[in-house]
Amino acid sequence: MSFSVTILGSSSALPTSKRNLTAHLVNHDERFFLTDCGEGTQMQLRRFKQKIGRINHIFISHLHGDHVFGLFGLLSTFSMMGRKSELHIYANPQIKEILDSHFIYFQDNLNYQINYHFFGAKKPQLIYEDSKFEVSTIPLKHRIPCVGFLFKEKPKQRNIRKECVELYKPGIKDIINIKNGADFITEDGKIIPNDKLTLAPPSSKSYAYCTDTQYTESIVPLIKDADLLFHEATFLKEDSKLAKTTYHSTTIQAAKIAQLANVKKLIIGHFSSRYKNDEQFLKETSSIFQNTVMAEDGLEITIN
Amino acid sequence: MSFSVTILGSSSALPTSKRNLTAHLVNHDERFFLTDCGEGTQMQLRRFKQKIGRINHIFISHLHGDHVFGLFGLLSTFSMMGRKSELHIYANPQIKEILDSHFIYFQDNLNYQINYHFFGAKKPQLIYEDSKFEVSTIPLKHRIPCVGFLFKEKPKQRNIRKECVELYKPGIKDIINIKNGADFITEDGKIIPNDKLTLAPPSSKSYAYCTDTQYTESIVPLIKDADLLFHEATFLKEDSKLAKTTYHSTTIQAAKIAQLANVKKLIIGHFSSRYKNDEQFLKETSSIFQNTVMAEDGLEITIN
Repeated sequence: MSFSVTILGSSSALPTSKRNLTAHLVNHDERFFLTDCGEGTQMQLRRFKQKIGRINHIFISHLHGDHVFGLFGLLSTFSMMGRKSELHIYANPQIKEILDSHFIYFQDNLNYQINYHFFGAKKPQLIYEDSKFEVSTIPLKHRIPCVGFLFKEKPKQRNIRKECVELYKPGIKDIINIKNGADFITEDGKIIPNDKLTLAPPSSKSYAYCTDTQYTESIVPLIKDADLLFHEATFLKEDSKLAKTTYHSTTIQAAKIAQLANVKKLIIGHFSSRYKNDEQFLKETSSIFQNTVMAEDGLEITIN
Repeated sequence: MSFSVTILGSSSALPTSKRNLTAHLVNHDERFFLTDCGEGTQMQLRRFKQKIGRINHIFISHLHGDHVFGLFGLLSTFSMMGRKSELHIYANPQIKEILDSHFIYFQDNLNYQINYHFFGAKKPQLIYEDSKFEVSTIPLKHRIPCVGFLFKEKPKQRNIRKECVELYKPGIKDIINIKNGADFITEDGKIIPNDKLTLAPPSSKSYAYCTDTQYTESIVPLIKDADLLFHEATFLKEDSKLAKTTYHSTTIQAAKIAQLANVKKLIIGHFSSRYKNDEQFLKETSSIFQNTVMAEDGLEITIN
């Protein structure tokens, strides 16, 4: 089952010639979830050969322009491409006002429906769920209401031992039950306990997306043991005061959160364009949390 | 005196991995005029190393998203860059409503002033003028009110012959008058006619920008003898019916306008993404108007 994230933009509010504005594309089992949609996201999707028409879910962390302004063009492009399937947008309730007042002037005839799913930013909330996957919010600490998102696989089915299938010849219904943890009763009434029939399921993977935020340990229990954490590192450590006043984080702070949450891997991004040398971001972060990578536009990271 | 245009985006409404949405940057004597502002324009300005902070005038041809959606991010970026100088926006009056309703949600604290200059789309209108340069509208034929823009140098001063300066030793005021066409009166009252004192001035150059539009010969007198014409060629000639119903032009139609208007050079652009082979655009257009070039993102054309 595929599970990956592609970085579409890695700059903070001012894009550079190398880094576009924020957007990530999460692919779980060929379902595509767009996370934030800065200006130029539709061009980045094309540039990195992603399947624009297959995005059915868009999550918006907060309503600052550098996370939203690509939505206008993308919604319009969907329409021009002949989209018919419903689009789900998960965001602060104000997103509907913004889009409704936009539609007064532009693209008032979308040929598909938008379903809005609103959330607050104070408590974690399950906002998406299918048979294999779920998405919850992670309240963050920013100038305006802002959340991160935890993308998480549901517990997977146990694997039946091949030799048990040959020995007991369970029917299809039995196999489903066994995979879900049930014992098996043979024709002569003997109970075979599940742990003799099965092996442990593959582990369920998770990806936590946390931007924009000040350093806040309140997120640690929510992202505990995540396989991959994206945490913003807008500033280098020398600018920790600036990070605090602008409600952003430094390299060191991103690393500390990764460490406290015991995540397996950290990606840092949302880099301020004020620094000439990007390498310092990685150097500072990995001095505290070694398994760190820097976000680059087009980078794809596989989670399973 | 420099006069050039840089193509920032050459696609029609759907961008491709090679062609961004519409925007041109006109540079006259180091004054910068942005013409249309499709999504991603601020990134293209950076990519092609243009001076974002020196753009003081933005002209919007019409209020379709592919010509406007880059404005939201650009206005916000100006603010983040600490802009203080006034910005002039020339557009249909509705632009103010659009931006005002946008500012309710985003960037309500721009640290510079926007001066709006409105125009209709029925009659040609002079909308900008400085001592050396002027910009007028060119009414086009599109689904909604739409204009092109004629960027034109004002008549230049005549050149004084060097030998006349040595012979008659005119003062600074006299020189200014002579350059503007006046005769010179010597100390002993002799009148020296201007055509003996001066050479003809360098010719005044012009650039006509015409997109989006159906084929319309009504623009021919307005763009007559232009040094450079940008005319949209959204479709190949085989799709002339589609061009008509969508209020766009074909290659052949762009070439015919260039021919009728006797322009010196034609750039075609605003290409539909439906065609696999771009070369056909140039082939068809130059079969009728030979001095044609294709717009490419980043292409700079010098006009003088």
